[in-house]
Amino acid sequence: MPDPSTRSTEIAGTPLDPGELRQVDLYWRAANYLSAGQIYLLDNPLLREPLAPEHIKPRLLGHWGTTPGLNFVYAHLSRQVRRRGTEMMWIVGPGHGGPAAVATAWLDGTYSEIYPRVSRDAEGMRRLFRQFSFPGGVPSHAAPETPGSIHEGGELGYALSHAYGAAFDNPSLVVAAVVGDGEAETGPLAGSWSSTRFLDPVRDGAVLPILHLNGYKIAGPTVLARIPESDLVALLEGHGHRPYLVSGDDPETMHRQMAATLDTALDEIDAIRTRAREEGVTGPFRWPMIVLRSPKGWTGPAEVDGEPVAGTWRSHQVPLPGVRENADHLRQLEEWLRGYRPEELFDDDGRPRPEVVAQVPRGDRRISASPHANGGRLLTDLALPDFRDYAVDVPAPGADTAEPTRVLGGFLRDVITANPRTFRVMGPDETASNRLDAMFDATGRTWEAATLPTDRGLAPDGRVMEVLSEHLCQGWLEGYLLTGRHGLLNSYEAFVHIVDSMFNQHAKWLKVARTLPWRKPVASLNYLLSSHVWRQDHNGFSHQDPGFLDHVVNKKAEVVRVYLPPDANTLLSMADHCLRSRDYVNVIVSGKQPSLNLLPMDAAIEHCARGLGVLDWASSDEGGHPDVVLACAGDVPTLEALAAADLLRRHLPDLRVRLVNVVDLMRLQPDSEHPHGLSDRDYDALFTVDRPVVFAFHGYPALIHRLAYRRAGHANLHVRGYKEEGTTTTPFDMVMMNDLDRFHLVMDVIDRVPGLADRAADLRRHMEEERRRCRAHTREHGEDAPDIRDWTWPHRG
Amino acid sequence: MPDPSTRSTEIAGTPLDPGELRQVDLYWRAANYLSAGQIYLLDNPLLREPLAPEHIKPRLLGHWGTTPGLNFVYAHLSRQVRRRGTEMMWIVGPGHGGPAAVATAWLDGTYSEIYPRVSRDAEGMRRLFRQFSFPGGVPSHAAPETPGSIHEGGELGYALSHAYGAAFDNPSLVVAAVVGDGEAETGPLAGSWSSTRFLDPVRDGAVLPILHLNGYKIAGPTVLARIPESDLVALLEGHGHRPYLVSGDDPETMHRQMAATLDTALDEIDAIRTRAREEGVTGPFRWPMIVLRSPKGWTGPAEVDGEPVAGTWRSHQVPLPGVRENADHLRQLEEWLRGYRPEELFDDDGRPRPEVVAQVPRGDRRISASPHANGGRLLTDLALPDFRDYAVDVPAPGADTAEPTRVLGGFLRDVITANPRTFRVMGPDETASNRLDAMFDATGRTWEAATLPTDRGLAPDGRVMEVLSEHLCQGWLEGYLLTGRHGLLNSYEAFVHIVDSMFNQHAKWLKVARTLPWRKPVASLNYLLSSHVWRQDHNGFSHQDPGFLDHVVNKKAEVVRVYLPPDANTLLSMADHCLRSRDYVNVIVSGKQPSLNLLPMDAAIEHCARGLGVLDWASSDEGGHPDVVLACAGDVPTLEALAAADLLRRHLPDLRVRLVNVVDLMRLQPDSEHPHGLSDRDYDALFTVDRPVVFAFHGYPALIHRLAYRRAGHANLHVRGYKEEGTTTTPFDMVMMNDLDRFHLVMDVIDRVPGLADRAADLRRHMEEERRRCRAHTREHGEDAPDIRDWTWPHRG
Repeated sequence: MPDPSTRSTEIAGTPLDPGELRQVDLYWRAANYLSAGQIYLLDNPLLREPLAPEHIKPRLLGHWGTTPGLNFVYAHLSRQVRRRGTEMMWIVGPGHGGPAAVATAWLDGTYSEIYPRVSRDAEGMRRLFRQFSFPGGVPSHAAPETPGSIHEGGELGYALSHAYGAAFDNPSLVVAAVVGDGEAETGPLAGSWSSTRFLDPVRDGAVLPILHLNGYKIAGPTVLARIPESDLVALLEGHGHRPYLVSGDDPETMHRQMAATLDTALDEIDAIRTRAREEGVTGPFRWPMIVLRSPKGWTGPAEVDGEPVAGTWRSHQVPLPGVRENADHLRQLEEWLRGYRPEELFDDDGRPRPEVVAQVPRGDRRISASPHANGGRLLTDLALPDFRDYAVDVPAPGADTAEPTRVLGGFLRDVITANPRTFRVMGPDETASNRLDAMFDATGRTWEAATLPTDRGLAPDGRVMEVLSEHLCQGWLEGYLLTGRHGLLNSYEAFVHIVDSMFNQHAKWLKVARTLPWRKPVASLNYLLSSHVWRQDHNGFSHQDPGFLDHVVNKKAEVVRVYLPPDANTLLSMADHCLRSRDYVNVIVSGKQPSLNLLPMDAAIEHCARGLGVLDWASSDEGGHPDVVLACAGDVPTLEALAAADLLRRHLPDLRVRLVNVVDLMRLQPDSEHPHGLSDRDYDALFTVDRPVVFAFHGYPALIHRLAYRRAGHANLHVRGYKEEGTTTTPFDMVMMNDLDRFHLVMDVIDRVPGLADRAADLRRHMEEERRRCRAHTREHGEDAPDIRDWTWPHRG
Repeated sequence: MPDPSTRSTEIAGTPLDPGELRQVDLYWRAANYLSAGQIYLLDNPLLREPLAPEHIKPRLLGHWGTTPGLNFVYAHLSRQVRRRGTEMMWIVGPGHGGPAAVATAWLDGTYSEIYPRVSRDAEGMRRLFRQFSFPGGVPSHAAPETPGSIHEGGELGYALSHAYGAAFDNPSLVVAAVVGDGEAETGPLAGSWSSTRFLDPVRDGAVLPILHLNGYKIAGPTVLARIPESDLVALLEGHGHRPYLVSGDDPETMHRQMAATLDTALDEIDAIRTRAREEGVTGPFRWPMIVLRSPKGWTGPAEVDGEPVAGTWRSHQVPLPGVRENADHLRQLEEWLRGYRPEELFDDDGRPRPEVVAQVPRGDRRISASPHANGGRLLTDLALPDFRDYAVDVPAPGADTAEPTRVLGGFLRDVITANPRTFRVMGPDETASNRLDAMFDATGRTWEAATLPTDRGLAPDGRVMEVLSEHLCQGWLEGYLLTGRHGLLNSYEAFVHIVDSMFNQHAKWLKVARTLPWRKPVASLNYLLSSHVWRQDHNGFSHQDPGFLDHVVNKKAEVVRVYLPPDANTLLSMADHCLRSRDYVNVIVSGKQPSLNLLPMDAAIEHCARGLGVLDWASSDEGGHPDVVLACAGDVPTLEALAAADLLRRHLPDLRVRLVNVVDLMRLQPDSEHPHGLSDRDYDALFTVDRPVVFAFHGYPALIHRLAYRRAGHANLHVRGYKEEGTTTTPFDMVMMNDLDRFHLVMDVIDRVPGLADRAADLRRHMEEERRRCRAHTREHGEDAPDIRDWTWPHRG
């Protein structure tokens, strides 16, 4: 590795005059002091007395390593905002960057405006220090509690995708995204560099990545800090960037380099905007970015107990771990803290001196106060066309079919038209496959790279974003939503597990954000899982997994919603509902294949509002107490349940069957567990407490048991669903492999209704034969038997 | 984008003579014919009769687009193996590459050796065609059923990490990894290019990435195919490669280019090996790779219904979709298939003519027959030291503490020493943080990039692989295991969700592989989740998620195992068990923080063998029928349950409490559901059918209900666990936030044992006060109250 000090960048930006140099350095020193103070000090925040063990926190839990570099970046970004009037927000990618984000927000005044208890004075500083990583206090990562952040810095990998999501459709915004070199090793981050190929310089803002190479992770070096510098530059150029290098450890030199470099980068962004917006130049544009190579734990202790610390991984957490017990460490800490000369930084009342905060921008221009980072402040309702206008006609329930997502596509097309700047649809290359292609009548696929004459429907400002990365889709959408816009992610059901962990973090973000009055509600994160477990006819076993629903319901009940509309009209109604909602994660599962139209629109709306209900026309209990309840959730299970009800009606006409369809899965939980939960009384009235319930479910059967285990009738509940059996086969063969088929449901009813086993023994044998017949037909012809393929609900009367 | 035809690579490899050209082209044509046949033909495999609709499959479900390029690659790889004697395997990254992998294996003879019914003759060809994407047949992706594959090609993103995993510690192997340009957009793939920085040219084999730019995903262009070529080259150079470009569409030219390029690349690999192994040269080495730019759907129909097809996204699936109904499509298909001149390729019996297979290597050298791709064939048992030798001394149960993972580290250190070429430990930078650092006494961290004098413990052949990418860790390990070696992945519990989807695919692979007699068992995939939900003292809410256990148990019971050893000795016993096991996914959750030593080694072994059991010394039922069962699973819940039992013993000495600890979570399921499941009789004997069971659980409470809902006593089961409440706080505050603490467990017992509510009302109030006391102490002092911090199980007698 070349010596960092030899590689300063020769660039043309405006140099710092001595006054500016002093200002930016004062701000940086103050932020560093406030950061180290957060990690260590329980009291004596201004070091008015000699430092004593009782001033030190009993558990030292912070991370110093990344902090001074972040403060350095913030000081310079802030200065440029003040100078140039740039509208800017920042993303703190590095883990444990909390001390920097909080320190700078406090210096800016933003923190005390939001949390008046943590005032911008000595007492506030004491509280600021104490609360950090302290029980009941604030996290060590950038988090919902952190002003100016849309980014939870705990799990790494999403700094760039969040930044791009924020920049889309915000043409005057610059999003500075600090990427740690640890984070840069993650797959999601590595994949998100290609976002340059999706950013429209006309309609979108700019992202300025700042790759912060401080060289170490927890316990060892990072890859990007140790590859040949020519490789690093090539890599970043390959991603469409022009990288500028700022490296060294001497503060004055570094300030000069950073100021000039940032100036140049922002000039280039302005130039790209001018060329694209005023001169009509099209790309590819080479977007500037910065590589900042600074020592880990910069300005902290150089050596502790004879080992080098600053500039090594030993700075990752707490450089002086033994200050409460070890007098030498305590002395070193005091020297270190006093080295920032707090008396120059803060006045007698503990307020930042005017010179320290002279470069802080005003009001909402402060990066820590950016309204984009509290997107609910900017959120406007979507202009939604009336979803009823897209309804399919249902002259008789179940008599004919539609492709639900194709119907939804028409609605979404007009949502796009009506909201040309505030609504995007993300998905990994499956929009047309998921039959949402009506949207392409109104917009194109976002595309900034080269095009060929044979291409169709690519556009720099397309509202549909397709990239074969669920991570990027989700990260973009999160960034877009958290800055006050709306959207939808469509994905294969099995592969949405790729973003399980991102979902976790977003759900956690929402849970915390809902408790912070200053964070205004944002649009919900909407998933549409369309190519689902039951219809992977040509993809087979690898594509069969309905477990995302299980994953989702582990998160806090007030945040998560799961919907399984059984037909096109219920899908429209649910989609409209989800697009209007706030601060939730909504998961909608709906097939793209032709499926029965069950409910006219009015009935569909009512059914969705209730969340579950009896399909009277498919039931034979005539409103009385049934012999058996056939329940279903999901389009394919509903089809099988209907077919089973029909078989029962024909073969056992005196059996009273009640068919219950569940759209809103959360209704199955008790009302004590989930806001949508049904009261025990209502649940018992619907499912009975004493009759067998045969439940045909879209997902893993255990999920239904888990939701309903407290119900009185739970012992009578028998669930069929996906039991991890699958392959490349026909739709009906798939349900047979998992015993979810109509014939098996009839057998389940016969086995469970008292007295039926004898009376219906012939029917049960017949059902077995039907299964064999269907299996044989499929094995022979490669498709389902015609009576299965073409089955519709019989017209009544 | 430049015209592909203008960019042939000038390289120095050996040119093809006319005979070689003819051979490789014959092989390619035959593979293409066999691939198209798989997609379309139900019968008439050799086109001995004019093609008629009844010869066509009723459901056309294959994917043509990627196939001819894959066949082209395979033909050339195979030729080089024959020529050079290289030991080679390949990874088929592109989705739906099944037809190519199967066609080439059939041509090689491998397929018929494994599946004799699919013989290498006309009848076998008919079966080969019919079975593809046909009910009961074979998948359209490379899959466990595919000879020569260790890679499930359904979910994309892992081609390179699997390839590197295969190459580690296989010094004579070359792994050719075909990466599709769709897959290249995924985060995990993008992140895995950095594997070059972890490959030791001395101890490891080589990976030859072949980036196949056919330009399109399902419905649009791919990023890497459309960025400026200079950016593409820079990107790949940035990853440490020397990229060679092969591009065009004229077969003869392309054959010549590919032959010479491959020759050059393999020469360079040989040269690197020589320099590293014989001359002692150290890196960085610039590893060769190939960019193959060929038309999507190459050699397929150029135009269908007036739209261009070959060379566009319209070739992605079935280029002629209407052959059964549309006479024009049928005619086009026949022309297309006959264009390969099957009569030149296959003899009268349907066998490949000698000239077609003249270049196929012999026996195990055939790429499709590589023993590395059926790793169980090469697997040897680990040499395991006696884990009893690492036991902690337990003079009295619960009287003192150890850090379980630190104890395990000593055992793993000696496993490494005893198995220097067949065992690796992967983890995202947390090995030392997880206190497994004894391993570093025996080995280093794998590191091929630059080093500095201040570095510690980096080594090119280190057995511990750390990279801040769970995807890369998991992909490497999967590749390593599937090629017949052993390993362990350690991770933060919350962030193992990052690889949820990879786990799914591996579990699915194992489920299918177990049904294939020719696939020999491989070592289990072992997860050690150490920094778990309850001890995220300084990381807080973002790091708190125990849901991986829920995720895992959705997969087939015969494949998944979950262990929660409560102390150091049980951890040692479980780890030994897992390292000896085959074809499972084992998940071990064990804390790294000091926790009570509960069981002497003999008792620990017995407890682990049973999977669960009564801790007599902590129970007060004296072997009789208890008033209440206190159950626990996980180290922190066990501590709280023990403390609760102690409180009950002291305050309610006549209450008969049975304390049951669960190590093997699967024991809770009925034996009908899981091979480890306890019979109802044994379960009922342990948990009773009529007494309240208060269960303190490591994860989300719903998981216990889900496993135990069929048990007779389920209505009496009350579970405490993580309920998604957390923050940066002390360990005891965390359990209090989730009502899992000892005081709350006592309250739960009081609330549930009949008659106790009145008798123990004072105690219940006292417990509430204790909670308030502890909370106040924590808020005031930032640490747990001393009596909580220092609690150990009371010595008896």
